[in-house]
Amino acid sequence: MKEKLTLIKVGGKIVEEEATLQALLSDFAAIEGRKVLVHGGGRSATKLAARLGIESQMVNGRRITDAETLKIVTMVYGGLVNKNIVARLQACGVNALGLTGADMDVIRSVKRPVKDVDYGFVGDVERVDATLLGDLIAKGVVPVMAPLTHDGCGNMLNTNADTIAGETAKALAQLFDVTLVYCFEKRGVLRDENDDDSVIPQITRADFEQLVADGVVQGGMIPKLENAFEALRAGVSQVIITQASAINMPGEGTRIIR
Amino acid sequence: MKEKLTLIKVGGKIVEEEATLQALLSDFAAIEGRKVLVHGGGRSATKLAARLGIESQMVNGRRITDAETLKIVTMVYGGLVNKNIVARLQACGVNALGLTGADMDVIRSVKRPVKDVDYGFVGDVERVDATLLGDLIAKGVVPVMAPLTHDGCGNMLNTNADTIAGETAKALAQLFDVTLVYCFEKRGVLRDENDDDSVIPQITRADFEQLVADGVVQGGMIPKLENAFEALRAGVSQVIITQASAINMPGEGTRIIR
Repeated sequence: MKEKLTLIKVGGKIVEEEATLQALLSDFAAIEGRKVLVHGGGRSATKLAARLGIESQMVNGRRITDAETLKIVTMVYGGLVNKNIVARLQACGVNALGLTGADMDVIRSVKRPVKDVDYGFVGDVERVDATLLGDLIAKGVVPVMAPLTHDGCGNMLNTNADTIAGETAKALAQLFDVTLVYCFEKRGVLRDENDDDSVIPQITRADFEQLVADGVVQGGMIPKLENAFEALRAGVSQVIITQASAINMPGEGTRIIR
Repeated sequence: MKEKLTLIKVGGKIVEEEATLQALLSDFAAIEGRKVLVHGGGRSATKLAARLGIESQMVNGRRITDAETLKIVTMVYGGLVNKNIVARLQACGVNALGLTGADMDVIRSVKRPVKDVDYGFVGDVERVDATLLGDLIAKGVVPVMAPLTHDGCGNMLNTNADTIAGETAKALAQLFDVTLVYCFEKRGVLRDENDDDSVIPQITRADFEQLVADGVVQGGMIPKLENAFEALRAGVSQVIITQASAINMPGEGTRIIR
């Protein structure tokens, strides 16, 4: 039987504010079994860019990563945010290891082809090599992954943290019994977006199709759930959509299952 | 018999300029056997600090690391410089892994006590844990170490790259046959500081004492050599002081031996 592994993805907002960061790290430290943390860091990057007089260009909520912006996200995601989390987790007794996709060639990407929009130095994940990562996890190491990958030709690439979480969970599912947890602003997938108490506790593929047909699940939640089902198809045991404050509360949030 | 391992320490200047960086990485990639790279990055940190309107305060050539400066060196050393080297080495076929001392708790430091000068968030190395590091190296991973450590209480600490190189070499000497290479602006230890061709090819402890007594070795070179002999006492096989352009040229530079 495979060992249990929990992969938590948290957005930048949670890890960039002292109060929410400390709470997250305490909850994360308390999770039993093998674990991985994937983090964002966009607000700090935007803030540093502004201080340097570099304008952050966003298209459809995605950052345009020119050469200067790539330097900033490499500094902020790979350095400031990542190492701060690593040092803090070490203080909680968690043997954290900060990683980008370039480290040990864990995640290789291809620079996104230019179509309507040139996103610049943005990477679309090509493959995750979980061999060395799996060895380290089995020895008690806890990877902390920044939203950066590389192209194998010497360039770092800015990469969506949700994608890193999903692709890493799939690769680790060959070695572990993986639960993938996406932290979200809301308590989970809501039946009524104006009612925070209307969390749908569990969604199967059949439920999902019905919820979309009924118009209950719509907009940005559809691709999010599509990705969750794709992770399940690739061997991930369950996907949970919940709030960062509930990562260690079984029964909270929405469980996406096969 | 232990496997050979070469640990190269290069200053910031080499890794921060495109032409010297590319040459260094090609030479480093060509080194046979196990290897580790320790790098500086001070010029980039000073440059970023200046752009952010933060004055870099130096006392006796050492940076005073206040809270703002700690953020900058964490970004620059741990993010920008480190990940750029890692991505570039991956492109050379070297399976690099960027590390600070906080990652896998490899190097724990204590914040330097305030005496005449308050250096701020500067760490004096307390211990290096080479267990996981050694496992990774034996599997072909090449650690790339930034001059940052942590205190085990959640804080990153700015740490001298020469010290990181020396302490890591000593810890790895339990597992490998270690050659420690300090890259220097000059071709090695010079008999006449005005004559670049006067490199002393080899220095033993007895030679060193004679060279100091004769006034040939003086100033900043004395503590550098003291550290080299201390590394040898702790099990490092040899220490080489040479130029970055000669890291893969046996016979160049000065060999410090027992």
